[in-house]
Amino acid sequence: MDWLSVRRGEMAKSTQLIDNEVFRAYATYAAIVLIKMMLMSLITAYFRITRKAFVNPEDTESFGKGENAKKYLRTDPDVERVRRGHLNDLENIVPFVGIGLLYALSGPELSTALLHFRIFTGARILHTFAYLIPLPQPGRGLSWAVGYSVTFSMAYKVLKTAWL
Amino acid sequence: MDWLSVRRGEMAKSTQLIDNEVFRAYATYAAIVLIKMMLMSLITAYFRITRKAFVNPEDTESFGKGENAKKYLRTDPDVERVRRGHLNDLENIVPFVGIGLLYALSGPELSTALLHFRIFTGARILHTFAYLIPLPQPGRGLSWAVGYSVTFSMAYKVLKTAWL
Amino acid sequence: MDWLSVRRGEMAKSTQLIDNEVFRAYATYAAIVLIKMMLMSLITAYFRITRKAFVNPEDTESFGKGENAKKYLRTDPDVERVRRGHLNDLENIVPFVGIGLLYALSGPELSTALLHFRIFTGARILHTFAYLIPLPQPGRGLSWAVGYSVTFSMAYKVLKTAWL
Repeated sequence: MDWLSVRRGEMAKSTQLIDNEVFRAYATYAAIVLIKMMLMSLITAYFRITRKAFVNPEDTESFGKGENAKKYLRTDPDVERVRRGHLNDLENIVPFVGIGLLYALSGPELSTALLHFRIFTGARILHTFAYLIPLPQPGRGLSWAVGYSVTFSMAYKVLKTAWL
Repeated sequence: MDWLSVRRGEMAKSTQLIDNEVFRAYATYAAIVLIKMMLMSLITAYFRITRKAFVNPEDTESFGKGENAKKYLRTDPDVERVRRGHLNDLENIVPFVGIGLLYALSGPELSTALLHFRIFTGARILHTFAYLIPLPQPGRGLSWAVGYSVTFSMAYKVLKTAWL
Repeated sequence: MDWLSVRRGEMAKSTQLIDNEVFRAYATYAAIVLIKMMLMSLITAYFRITRKAFVNPEDTESFGKGENAKKYLRTDPDVERVRRGHLNDLENIVPFVGIGLLYALSGPELSTALLHFRIFTGARILHTFAYLIPLPQPGRGLSWAVGYSVTFSMAYKVLKTAWL
């Protein structure tokens, strides 16, 4: 059932992509940051419900009809803050997942790869807290810059490996 | 020309990633949901043109100069609705594609994998209809939650496989 | 350390995904367009700072307290333009990266694959210039349509290969 097993039997087990240490590390941290990004949806929903700030008319129908429901169609600073954090995740975590996959397949040292993946993951978790609390600047800016730099470092390795 | 053929001749044919059944299922459904997401751009363009609601001044120049064109620089509820649906796709389909790839490489049963991919794809197509028609809640909310849960289920399998 | 080396020694070197020509081309162009997308963050930051137009109160604290800082919490047409370009990149480059990976693994001719990757990359770089300068329409529209069509062409090849 694994991806290399066709007509190769026992040997296949040792050649599963997931058996490679660097790829396993990538899979772990990519899954963690993607889950973290997805949690922003739940936080947005939490603030929309507790702040009663919705954007779709059909979402306010349980509050009654007409003007009574219409007043909940509004923006709320807390909701908008979470949404900005979510968009920032899309802008930064998605490139990490794409470039990180190519990086994991470019044959880096396990220790170097782990360093990249862990620093990025830590920086993005910090970024979320810095955005939501919010922490005074340059807290959010620095955590953003660290994650950004890690992704560039991986992209450099990918381009160097793919071009030479 | 396939990705494992270098210096391996005939055998290569049997080890193409695309020959693996789970990966082929993943490729099919990932392509379908990504195409579905891309179609949101066309729907946005359709509503922008029919509702005459644009955001870039250079897009309204064909309507004439000055004030005559400026009145088309406005937001329209239908356009904004499609754009929200598109952003929701980015927030949900992109994690599915990333986590789904890792999941497909983690050696799941074909039947289990197909179940995940098909439920997610169905849920996201339903979500788009629920958003655009729009259906009364909890239509949109439920279709969102189903797709979200499927992605979490795959992420759990990935982390379990990559960590153990 | 490479992803197929486990228990396979010397042979592994010839089976690295990154050794395959089509995959190496994909890695190169995917990295380039993802880096291009990430640069939009720096351009946004540049315009936010030079136009003094921020969205988070904590970002304006270095300008002083109270009303003096509050006046910098505003939207600026140039900032919003870059942000729209960034979002358009997310909507188009992310599907390219996902579908392009599946396409690269579906065994296309190297020359055909290079044609797809290069036209897409050129079109998206043009799209960014067309958006930021801005060029008169249909400059931006055409560059968008070219990139969009390339991704659809790759998706067609993926579905044809995965289904048959």
